[in-house]
Amino acid sequence: MWLRTSCELTFRIAAPTPFILMLRPRSGGQQWVAREEYAIMPYVPVFEYTDDYKNLCQRLVAPVGGFIVRTSANVKTIDLVETAPGAPFVEIQHLPNEVLSYLLPSRYCESDRFGEMATSITSGSLPGYDQVAAIEDWLRSNIRYFSGNSGRPISAAEVNQQQSGVCRDFAHLGIALCRSLSIPARMVVGYLYNLEPMDLHAWFEAYVGGNWYTFDAVQNGIKRGYVAVGYGRDAADVAIYNQFGPAVFPITQIVAVEQIENPD
Amino acid sequence: MWLRTSCELTFRIAAPTPFILMLRPRSGGQQWVAREEYAIMPYVPVFEYTDDYKNLCQRLVAPVGGFIVRTSANVKTIDLVETAPGAPFVEIQHLPNEVLSYLLPSRYCESDRFGEMATSITSGSLPGYDQVAAIEDWLRSNIRYFSGNSGRPISAAEVNQQQSGVCRDFAHLGIALCRSLSIPARMVVGYLYNLEPMDLHAWFEAYVGGNWYTFDAVQNGIKRGYVAVGYGRDAADVAIYNQFGPAVFPITQIVAVEQIENPD
Amino acid sequence: MWLRTSCELTFRIAAPTPFILMLRPRSGGQQWVAREEYAIMPYVPVFEYTDDYKNLCQRLVAPVGGFIVRTSANVKTIDLVETAPGAPFVEIQHLPNEVLSYLLPSRYCESDRFGEMATSITSGSLPGYDQVAAIEDWLRSNIRYFSGNSGRPISAAEVNQQQSGVCRDFAHLGIALCRSLSIPARMVVGYLYNLEPMDLHAWFEAYVGGNWYTFDAVQNGIKRGYVAVGYGRDAADVAIYNQFGPAVFPITQIVAVEQIENPD
Amino acid sequence: MWLRTSCELTFRIAAPTPFILMLRPRSGGQQWVAREEYAIMPYVPVFEYTDDYKNLCQRLVAPVGGFIVRTSANVKTIDLVETAPGAPFVEIQHLPNEVLSYLLPSRYCESDRFGEMATSITSGSLPGYDQVAAIEDWLRSNIRYFSGNSGRPISAAEVNQQQSGVCRDFAHLGIALCRSLSIPARMVVGYLYNLEPMDLHAWFEAYVGGNWYTFDAVQNGIKRGYVAVGYGRDAADVAIYNQFGPAVFPITQIVAVEQIENPD
Repeated sequence: MWLRTSCELTFRIAAPTPFILMLRPRSGGQQWVAREEYAIMPYVPVFEYTDDYKNLCQRLVAPVGGFIVRTSANVKTIDLVETAPGAPFVEIQHLPNEVLSYLLPSRYCESDRFGEMATSITSGSLPGYDQVAAIEDWLRSNIRYFSGNSGRPISAAEVNQQQSGVCRDFAHLGIALCRSLSIPARMVVGYLYNLEPMDLHAWFEAYVGGNWYTFDAVQNGIKRGYVAVGYGRDAADVAIYNQFGPAVFPITQIVAVEQIENPD
Repeated sequence: MWLRTSCELTFRIAAPTPFILMLRPRSGGQQWVAREEYAIMPYVPVFEYTDDYKNLCQRLVAPVGGFIVRTSANVKTIDLVETAPGAPFVEIQHLPNEVLSYLLPSRYCESDRFGEMATSITSGSLPGYDQVAAIEDWLRSNIRYFSGNSGRPISAAEVNQQQSGVCRDFAHLGIALCRSLSIPARMVVGYLYNLEPMDLHAWFEAYVGGNWYTFDAVQNGIKRGYVAVGYGRDAADVAIYNQFGPAVFPITQIVAVEQIENPD
Repeated sequence: MWLRTSCELTFRIAAPTPFILMLRPRSGGQQWVAREEYAIMPYVPVFEYTDDYKNLCQRLVAPVGGFIVRTSANVKTIDLVETAPGAPFVEIQHLPNEVLSYLLPSRYCESDRFGEMATSITSGSLPGYDQVAAIEDWLRSNIRYFSGNSGRPISAAEVNQQQSGVCRDFAHLGIALCRSLSIPARMVVGYLYNLEPMDLHAWFEAYVGGNWYTFDAVQNGIKRGYVAVGYGRDAADVAIYNQFGPAVFPITQIVAVEQIENPD
Repeated sequence: MWLRTSCELTFRIAAPTPFILMLRPRSGGQQWVAREEYAIMPYVPVFEYTDDYKNLCQRLVAPVGGFIVRTSANVKTIDLVETAPGAPFVEIQHLPNEVLSYLLPSRYCESDRFGEMATSITSGSLPGYDQVAAIEDWLRSNIRYFSGNSGRPISAAEVNQQQSGVCRDFAHLGIALCRSLSIPARMVVGYLYNLEPMDLHAWFEAYVGGNWYTFDAVQNGIKRGYVAVGYGRDAADVAIYNQFGPAVFPITQIVAVEQIENPD
């Protein structure tokens, strides 16, 4: 399906503020970016680089006053997210080198503390995809979802304690559980068609059977309409924006995803 | 200045043909990509990756029949290309690691064979920027320029022998001469505003005084309106498209660069 | 000074166990590895790769039974660790791209929670090196040091709460405080001459004035005799060994550092 | 088998000379480095980095006077080099990203000029491993081998013209032929047990059936005792040493490879 995604962030800046933004989707196996717009108002010099996770990041210093970042993209996504029930666990010694860092605990995914819980949740599941599916089910049944912004991120252990969370929290707990079983797992931030209420979204991917597969414990039904913008170990790595110095929050953050005609 | 660049390649494909394309400009210190479009007709799955030179490349298999790649971008470029007469030669031991590979000879730049010639051309110049400027001047005075497509690339040694060439040939010879003086040099492919006749263009950059500077022996006057699309050691690394299997050439290749209003 | 470092780990393995080891020092500006030995008994196939932080890592599957990893190296280190009082804070927009990830919070360094504390500790210090020195002093005065193994790592917030820790804990808290001031900071694991009692050691580096500088709040006097083995965001990235599956601990871990004659 | 390799280079330096050395074997699937020594006399600061091809390189400035680089290693190699007759050609679209650059022409491998010749040599061979084996056979039958140093490298086209060459020349021609068939191929420099006369050696690897396989048209019989030191596109990338400024050649270059007892 073809989607048009857009995100507009408006800030009021009191002192020149360095930003690192990550709002540029890239084309991969499951999405193709056919058109993209990225406006910064007022215009300031921007440097683009690729981070450790191959995200395209933009560095700039926002000037004093109103500051707007407006991005949009026309993206073709696969019709249905791929699933692979039964896909096997990949033995550590056979994992590609570039996947290994997704086994380690990270800021918001204390996987070193979830071994027993993950073993219990997945008892009876075949090692691999089915374990991750069991984790996704468990999250859906046991963590109460609320939408909206939870402020600064909390960690998987904190999510597990409060038994509720936003999409980012579900992803963190899912990732921590997977990694504690030696299944590489990573965070994805992006857009989701028909998300209610519309906003940026977060989900996770797990590496089983030689591929990364999408999991999203917040959504129930048919999985389609995902547009990835950033990948990383957790929310510390994939912030839509990182800002340095005195905290600055967007006055408005307007996100939209609409289906469009096949432009061919 | 704000430019709108576009390139449309039309192929007629007789058998499914793997392509690697490099037509996506990135934002850097000297250019900002505010809008970009990339259409493939008919649509086929495309995978994007970053190559060794940090270019964004697109992999796909073109299907039998007509095949069109149409890209365009709105880009803000710096008003005048930076120059730095007197910028010093950087001693090898102080070069950043990531610049070292641009010292080595490459497919079309046999820098291992140009030591004496480069020394002669630059005698009397201060080591560094002024040497490269002397090389640029020498090229402009000694190599006869012709526009149009020269077919498959020839090497710096061949260019030097025939004493004439297209923009790509000027860049190759300039690069080979720089490297033979231990000055890192790299090829750039992209767009140039007001190029006559309009087409994709090639030039080179040399690393002196701690920065990369633009050189283009084909152009005489004020330097402005450059939009870089790819970087590499030479044309072997920065082909707008690499195609595998039986040779396929574009039926048409339409390039345009026009000045646009500041979209702010 | 010339040092001979060695580390011997002995495990008793109950089931084939995948390991990732990081015990190979590399030569850099402050150390030169003149000789190195790395024995694995019994011998099993080992694959070496470079991780995201440029550490050389060894992957292997330890077989059932006794398993010994024995490494040693002859290393020339600089006579005195470099210091740079007054070296300035580097503005975010001028940091090299490859340093940016050391600004982010990580598993054991919740820098997102230390802003006020760091500001208070460093009030009166010039931005940059002197802030880090103030943090190092504060750690030395306020956190009680104990040697030996603390079991699995705890995080900076936990260290701060218990007001005591091993060398790794000091490093984590120091890093978290630096990053909360937008100073890139990273963990280093390695050897230290004359450490009492002898063991592997951990310290941290901060990026100020355009360079990485060594800080070690556990040591008081003259700083010399450091041999770095691994770098990373925190202990999650720089484990001397990571082991997967049921936990396995070394039966013995024998570390030695002795001064040797200049082998020239 | 266990081998002890050593290489000693002695230079007489007239003016301070920057060097980049590549003499440090790494452990991989087919070799394990159990012990390594690397002496530089007189001692000067050395910086180590990983190049684009993941080789460990050492940067230094050799001082005036005698300058000696002496390296040795104890290495376990696989008993017989792996072969895979029948291993299939990998379609371009299924090649891993990191292998793609080995398809491109390079300084000494003008693969863009060998299409017809390669097709002719491999007619009748199954696409993949068998094509490369046919190329290896053709080289052995058609290019006259001579040992010793040929001075500066010549390119595959030049080798093909003179119908003779050293090991490096065989590798360059083999690589150019493979790449012209869209088979990724790379140069390897290292040691070979029982090479006559003993010296550093060069061979090539081709990527077929999902793996890199060793080919060496200079050697006839059983293939064993290879120790790789560097990988790259061709000799431009994998020089045991690159030296900048006025040319300096080793006064002596002493290479040895001897079988040693299993040190376990």
